[in-house]
Amino acid sequence: MTTDRIWTAALVVIGDEILSGRTQDRNVSQIALWLNLQGIRLAEVRVVPDRTDAIVEAVNMLRARNDYLFTTGGIGPTHDDITVDAIAVALGVAVVVHPRARAMLDAYYKTRGGLTEARLRMARVPEGAELIENRMSGAPGIRHGNIFIMAGVPHITAMMLDSLSGKLEGGKPLLSTTIGCWVAESEIADLLADTERAHPGCQIGSYPFFREGRVGANFVVRSTRPEALRACGDALLSALLAEGREAVAGEV
Amino acid sequence: MTTDRIWTAALVVIGDEILSGRTQDRNVSQIALWLNLQGIRLAEVRVVPDRTDAIVEAVNMLRARNDYLFTTGGIGPTHDDITVDAIAVALGVAVVVHPRARAMLDAYYKTRGGLTEARLRMARVPEGAELIENRMSGAPGIRHGNIFIMAGVPHITAMMLDSLSGKLEGGKPLLSTTIGCWVAESEIADLLADTERAHPGCQIGSYPFFREGRVGANFVVRSTRPEALRACGDALLSALLAEGREAVAGEV
Repeated sequence: MTTDRIWTAALVVIGDEILSGRTQDRNVSQIALWLNLQGIRLAEVRVVPDRTDAIVEAVNMLRARNDYLFTTGGIGPTHDDITVDAIAVALGVAVVVHPRARAMLDAYYKTRGGLTEARLRMARVPEGAELIENRMSGAPGIRHGNIFIMAGVPHITAMMLDSLSGKLEGGKPLLSTTIGCWVAESEIADLLADTERAHPGCQIGSYPFFREGRVGANFVVRSTRPEALRACGDALLSALLAEGREAVAGEV
Repeated sequence: MTTDRIWTAALVVIGDEILSGRTQDRNVSQIALWLNLQGIRLAEVRVVPDRTDAIVEAVNMLRARNDYLFTTGGIGPTHDDITVDAIAVALGVAVVVHPRARAMLDAYYKTRGGLTEARLRMARVPEGAELIENRMSGAPGIRHGNIFIMAGVPHITAMMLDSLSGKLEGGKPLLSTTIGCWVAESEIADLLADTERAHPGCQIGSYPFFREGRVGANFVVRSTRPEALRACGDALLSALLAEGREAVAGEV
């Protein structure tokens, strides 16, 4: 069995509003799902406050040990938007005004009071960066080498991801299949471990729930190999049914 | 102005299901909000996979630089539940069966098929730990020094937090007040920065949105000092109204 190269990405979520509990993050799951479609694994996430030292530490650690680094948040026009400046510090480059970003903002604000200093902040990038333009939003994301600087607002991030689709090199997507079962996971823990062991290249995750007065669990099998995935899922379902468990292919 | 000591906590979210995008995390916001009521600031969060080395790295880095460390996930009975073992590695202690946890599981499973090896896994703790018992769930959380090991399922974590309420030393909670305004944040960026500068001990976060065809933003003022908070919120609201903006006390 050859070992496929696994491409990884890390995500730094920047924002006091996430750490205070005020805002429920949505970007981790949307970026994770999108990355997997590109054949890239989300390997780790950090949530850091709006503070330069915290951003620099996370960015420099994570970009060194992953193929890609994404950030979300802190790229607006106000004083608490410090992501571009912090990443420039992390990279040891200057912050410059990107000419095309400036032209875009100029056009947009021509009939809206003109390009003020605050608005011009949104055209600032770490030197050497290019823009991640997108169909719908005037505000572009920013790419600098393997770093991708995205918006905090989830639907704007979604548009930036959309414009990057198919453009990043990746490997095989991690495929998954789910077996649902009305069983306490503790009753079949050995069966799960044995099934995983018998299927190299597959991992089985067990996610219990308590619903309608009954316990159950969804077992998620993951693999990059379609045949191995199917064989492992089939084996698990058959073993559960052979024990007389109420199990189905798919989530319950 | 005296400086109050700020008590901080970090959170390590453990779980492949979060990094794959399958499961939307709910524990970051619920733990953040609960911590703030205890006078403790959530300072940083990491999401790591179900892998010992990743858990050990995060736990040892974050427990050293925060007053408290919380983890969520990976404390069930199946093979993918490795949190207790990984934290024991991080602490350099053995994994032992906690006698009271064993007794609780014994009683619970007496009429449910008995205490199997898999079920006994849930009584294992890093040596020296105590249990975080709770009203509703048979499965306790685990405390070891300044480390708090919680469930992954949010409503079980909620019960564990409830049983810890009022028991951790903290400082002053971070208070907040919100001013909502139908304005593009770029138009009043200077006003925000000036208002923050004029009110030491207060931070202002700007959270824009696009709704019903209009742009707006909520400005969240944060401070540990009630008088400073009120003065800053009042000053911001007055300044917006004086400019003829459509602003209100409270979120829009």
